[in-house]
Amino acid sequence: MKNRIITISREFGSGGRTIGKEVAEKLGIPCYDEKLINKIAEKSGFAKEYIADRGEYAPSVNWFVNMFGGRDYNGHSISDDLWKIQREIILELAEKGPCVIVGRCADYILKDTADCLTVFIHASKEKRAERIVKLYGERDEKPEQRLLDKDKRRKVYYQMYTDTEWGVADNYHISLDSGIFGIEKCVELITGLY
Amino acid sequence: MKNRIITISREFGSGGRTIGKEVAEKLGIPCYDEKLINKIAEKSGFAKEYIADRGEYAPSVNWFVNMFGGRDYNGHSISDDLWKIQREIILELAEKGPCVIVGRCADYILKDTADCLTVFIHASKEKRAERIVKLYGERDEKPEQRLLDKDKRRKVYYQMYTDTEWGVADNYHISLDSGIFGIEKCVELITGLY
Repeated sequence: MKNRIITISREFGSGGRTIGKEVAEKLGIPCYDEKLINKIAEKSGFAKEYIADRGEYAPSVNWFVNMFGGRDYNGHSISDDLWKIQREIILELAEKGPCVIVGRCADYILKDTADCLTVFIHASKEKRAERIVKLYGERDEKPEQRLLDKDKRRKVYYQMYTDTEWGVADNYHISLDSGIFGIEKCVELITGLY
Repeated sequence: MKNRIITISREFGSGGRTIGKEVAEKLGIPCYDEKLINKIAEKSGFAKEYIADRGEYAPSVNWFVNMFGGRDYNGHSISDDLWKIQREIILELAEKGPCVIVGRCADYILKDTADCLTVFIHASKEKRAERIVKLYGERDEKPEQRLLDKDKRRKVYYQMYTDTEWGVADNYHISLDSGIFGIEKCVELITGLY
């Protein structure tokens, strides 16, 4: 019997992480987000900050750089190592029991091995900019620019390792605009569907 | 005060039309699908079959043909006339009162003039193939091929007239996989959100 897993993919600043945490709390199952990063850090020896960034984001928005940059003579890169370890840990967690997994291409990794409810959380640029300033404060770089950069790098990463397009409705069971419905309504809808 | 409208965009064979009809019935508001085609036929003089096809589908999947084929010396085509009339009727309907509008880029047309809940209904190719054979019967062309052709032409049409990408989660408030949740659950979710 396959375990029931909720995977949450999300745009940066959409509140997807908070939604994942609250859904897990309501359902009384674990949520892997920070905990997942810790596990990957333990197994890989990489720093948490490195994993948080490079386990979901391509180093550059340039496809050519990502495909051929930083690779050894066998065509293999540190990003590939991280992808492999991340993948193994996600498969192990899904074996252990029902849970919520935020990000890290879990929807793709688990598509044949778990009974997944795949969720995509998005919101308008304005709503997300508002949220990231509230959460992470002002930076030199404008919030709109931070969003654009993060979105592009996440999209490239997803495409590179899954050969599927990130953010296309077809790839998720349900996609929700958290800026329109609010965090609480999204949590209610997802727990209701589980 | 802007009227509350539900716009339903959908993949061919996903059951989006049925969902729109049932949502409208439950909410006691009109659903414009067949009725919309009739209105466009009245105003334009075009045949209903022509409107059903060419008011949502590009004539070809080739962007170049759509952009430059069948145009007069002013760069204007019959598709453009149909788009204009369709747009006017959708704007008029939205002025009249709350309703459900299925397809025809209504989400894009109404984005600044009505209080819309924008919905996208999709399903896997297998589920949709099953549904179209059940609904429309077998044809010479395989159901998978019919889907592929319809999807591509709808995508091209949407891109051509709205300059926005069809089927990208970001462009809808909620996207649902009707193959996973079933028609009834989708109806329940949408009416609940209205």
